[in-house]
Amino acid sequence: MIKMSVYYPANGGSKFDHDYYRTRHMPLIQERLGDACLRYEIDKGLGGRRPSRDTTLVAACHVYSPSLAAFQAAFGPHRAEIAADVANYTDITPIVQISEVVEG
Amino acid sequence: MIKMSVYYPANGGSKFDHDYYRTRHMPLIQERLGDACLRYEIDKGLGGRRPSRDTTLVAACHVYSPSLAAFQAAFGPHRAEIAADVANYTDITPIVQISEVVEG
Repeated sequence: MIKMSVYYPANGGSKFDHDYYRTRHMPLIQERLGDACLRYEIDKGLGGRRPSRDTTLVAACHVYSPSLAAFQAAFGPHRAEIAADVANYTDITPIVQISEVVEG
Repeated sequence: MIKMSVYYPANGGSKFDHDYYRTRHMPLIQERLGDACLRYEIDKGLGGRRPSRDTTLVAACHVYSPSLAAFQAAFGPHRAEIAADVANYTDITPIVQISEVVEG
């Protein structure tokens, strides 16, 4: 199993609409990916090593998929639509990371 | 529910022993945290937006806990021991992030 994680750094922009992200953007991804989205998780940043100080991330999401190939095949055709929706909730340029889920 | 995520940036050091991390370090954390560790997840970085290029993270872990207070109370007494174990698998200075799990 792999996951695609998308991180929104706290110092990367000025706005992030958590409600839109949760109720519109992530459900859009889930619908477009179909079976290639096993589940997803949304994080809302609380803080860094010492919470209430040094928050490094405003938010993040993690989309779990059976394999990298399955994810890419499902995501590719919808990439433009999904990317176009980002401006509706943030001006932060996200950081994308793909990982193998080793254990969990 | 919150999670404490620990990220190991690819450009932050020269070694990372994934086996030690999986078989020794994370089980140590789980044991020391007890009930404050609901579960944990380990990520092994595969790549960035274009896998096989621009890997941003070598590895990460996410420890799920009922609340920030429960996590801090359980982690505090073992912080020094857990921190001392890090040198056994990596020389990368990790980035810590605490998040609320909004959905997932």
